[in-house]
Amino acid sequence: MLKNPIYFLFVSLIYAQPDTSFIGKIYRYHLTHSNSYAALKDLCFNIGHRLSGSPQAAKAVKWAYLNLKEYGADSVFLQKVMVPRWVRGKKEQCVIQLKNNKRITMNTLILGNSVGTNGWLSAPAIRVKSFEELERLGSENIKGKIVFYDVFFDDGCLTQGEAYGKAVPYRSKGASMAAKYGAVAVLIRSMTSSRDDEPHTGMLRYDTIISRNKIPGFALSYLGANELSKYFDNSEVQKIELYSDCRQYPDTLSYNVIADLKGTEFPDKYILIGGHLDSWDVGHGAHDDGAGIVQSMEIIRAFRQLGYRPKHTIRVVCFMNEENGLRGAYAYADETKKHQWKHLAAMESDAGGFTPRGFGIDTTSGIFTGIYKYRDMLENYLINYLHHEGGGADIGPLEKMGVPCIGFIPDGQRYFDIHHTRQDTFDKVHKRELELGAAAMTTLVYLLDILFK
Amino acid sequence: MLKNPIYFLFVSLIYAQPDTSFIGKIYRYHLTHSNSYAALKDLCFNIGHRLSGSPQAAKAVKWAYLNLKEYGADSVFLQKVMVPRWVRGKKEQCVIQLKNNKRITMNTLILGNSVGTNGWLSAPAIRVKSFEELERLGSENIKGKIVFYDVFFDDGCLTQGEAYGKAVPYRSKGASMAAKYGAVAVLIRSMTSSRDDEPHTGMLRYDTIISRNKIPGFALSYLGANELSKYFDNSEVQKIELYSDCRQYPDTLSYNVIADLKGTEFPDKYILIGGHLDSWDVGHGAHDDGAGIVQSMEIIRAFRQLGYRPKHTIRVVCFMNEENGLRGAYAYADETKKHQWKHLAAMESDAGGFTPRGFGIDTTSGIFTGIYKYRDMLENYLINYLHHEGGGADIGPLEKMGVPCIGFIPDGQRYFDIHHTRQDTFDKVHKRELELGAAAMTTLVYLLDILFK
Repeated sequence: MLKNPIYFLFVSLIYAQPDTSFIGKIYRYHLTHSNSYAALKDLCFNIGHRLSGSPQAAKAVKWAYLNLKEYGADSVFLQKVMVPRWVRGKKEQCVIQLKNNKRITMNTLILGNSVGTNGWLSAPAIRVKSFEELERLGSENIKGKIVFYDVFFDDGCLTQGEAYGKAVPYRSKGASMAAKYGAVAVLIRSMTSSRDDEPHTGMLRYDTIISRNKIPGFALSYLGANELSKYFDNSEVQKIELYSDCRQYPDTLSYNVIADLKGTEFPDKYILIGGHLDSWDVGHGAHDDGAGIVQSMEIIRAFRQLGYRPKHTIRVVCFMNEENGLRGAYAYADETKKHQWKHLAAMESDAGGFTPRGFGIDTTSGIFTGIYKYRDMLENYLINYLHHEGGGADIGPLEKMGVPCIGFIPDGQRYFDIHHTRQDTFDKVHKRELELGAAAMTTLVYLLDILFK
Repeated sequence: MLKNPIYFLFVSLIYAQPDTSFIGKIYRYHLTHSNSYAALKDLCFNIGHRLSGSPQAAKAVKWAYLNLKEYGADSVFLQKVMVPRWVRGKKEQCVIQLKNNKRITMNTLILGNSVGTNGWLSAPAIRVKSFEELERLGSENIKGKIVFYDVFFDDGCLTQGEAYGKAVPYRSKGASMAAKYGAVAVLIRSMTSSRDDEPHTGMLRYDTIISRNKIPGFALSYLGANELSKYFDNSEVQKIELYSDCRQYPDTLSYNVIADLKGTEFPDKYILIGGHLDSWDVGHGAHDDGAGIVQSMEIIRAFRQLGYRPKHTIRVVCFMNEENGLRGAYAYADETKKHQWKHLAAMESDAGGFTPRGFGIDTTSGIFTGIYKYRDMLENYLINYLHHEGGGADIGPLEKMGVPCIGFIPDGQRYFDIHHTRQDTFDKVHKRELELGAAAMTTLVYLLDILFK
């Protein structure tokens, strides 16, 4: 990819010898004096989940602003972002009506951005196991029905992220695909391998090129979907009844929260790190992405407490609206163009606060090669998994503008157990794992700071 | 270290190209068709904890034997081991008597192998923060008292194993050290970083060279020890009362369970893998070491199901009595001498059923170098942490005889939260993490099988 020199400087990299005793201090600081776990507890219990446009999201903006001030940032400012405001409303419902007149109530969550059902929606149902089957069945079989996508997370994938990538199109465009053939609603399996009764919400995107009809989308838990699947196996399903009064309100004003620790030599060159401040409207948003937020913020506190003055400006961005719109990401990219901010690199932590494994690093800018030279040193800290390419949803627009992007990679086997559910709560975050993640991120920022001339 | 050619063959290693599609099949098998999680559930719920010499340990021997038969081992046999039989007895007690007459009851576990208190033991108490302080205080301050070792797990250590190594001498020889100066009992902090009220048991060893007096040793939880520490800070402690009727019974007959999958080319050369079948007498012994047992057993099932016939004999050993005596380890080593079994390598899984990181590998025999060549391939499976040196308690006697040893290394941040506690239960084990560990071990055994001529 050709880098755009307006937004990314062709700086030469120098191979500087890192101060390994300083890296040792970074680790000891995070494991013994960090505020990240306490901050996450505060965010989870005193604010809680914080969907864009909600009162809690507004509280979270103030919370991040005040914390970053207190942590010792040289400047903290708010960046305006107009965000969508989708409200779940009364508890959604899903009832399976069997031919023997039994009525089975299922745990369900309507998907984010979905339209509601406009009162109870009751219709016959059909089960499909793929988009191919849906298309084969066509309008004559689909019209007027509720479509159940009986598509599993692939347990055979090494990483849960890979399984998510394969299954998530059913959540994001399943409604539009089924609407194309006249379906009235869709049910999906939750994006998880975890055999439990927790439904997982997440973003549904209406694709008006596929269909202009917007139909509601609901998620069933792993076990609930298994049960429904069995009813279909035995041809027992008479119809399905769904209810949700969720709705979309007009866009509302919110903010990205941005904090700078000024560089001593190159104050106008930025190393960006961040996560997203918003969350889904269930649970605490603890791993997704309270963890990434407190880890990113802690880097400023760590450098201050350790007396480290970076050569380049370290910028922490708490992005707003990653979950249902990415408006914060785009607003930041727009401001970058306007102010011609020069980013040397951008890193995101949005994969949970689990034990760190390493980083996914852009390979086009020389950074991968630069960091790769430190691989054996990084192995001492068990963070030597250096993956080709990486980034994050919030820094995606910067990546398109040519900024080299990095994704922090923690262990990922437990993330999708609780992702976008009521179970993504503070108690699921392990103190040391969260702190080790922040230590790994601080170490990488330090290495970037000495790597760039 | 000079290898003893009687027990370790100087075989030359060949650098064979691994069949990566077969490794892919190994992973898919474990993640989609493994019996390891179901077997662990069965062990935990239908047998439970299984201290050496207990009826549950006897049941576990039968269980392992029958499972290994069913999994398709060519032969399964029991190896006699005389094991110690220590019995905890009635629920142990610890009461802190304050000067203001308040009595504080603490959660406690007496340490394994400890003598009991012979009725209630009541004595004034003294707090020390190190062995050095204990020695400085000497008999005049220690005699007749209960010694509280207020020594923390070092949170600043990168791995919990390192912190354990630093703190564990207070558990293992703290009683003998204090007895030397006339103490009547010791209290220790549990070996953990976890801020909770769970006491951790574990092995106490009376060192008769330090003192011939055997005094009881109890563990307090992290929070309980914090509380006691505060009472000492404020000089509030009047005395401490302890109770346990635990006792040591005569040695009793038990067994190692051994299963072979015969090698097609070199049936008399063994690649050994194992864990320990016994556990402490609290919780389920799920991570410690039910996990290592089901993972080791599953390797035989995996090779059978995948139709892989190894060149060398794959031997699975379920060792008895790792926790309080290592008698199984020594019995196996004795039989090795007697039968002149030739081991190419021995691997142990005894660090919990968490996400695999890699292996600690003997560096004296060429195996480390051999496996290191596969490092980039192993990175594809996120198991490329190859540590110099490694092994396990049960294969320690083999290591001394010159057998190259390997320790399976999973992520270790959560292990000491539940290690030797009532919380080491089945629900703490994550299905995929357990399976990925077994897949990693199977992969390494496959690589060893092709690596040796």
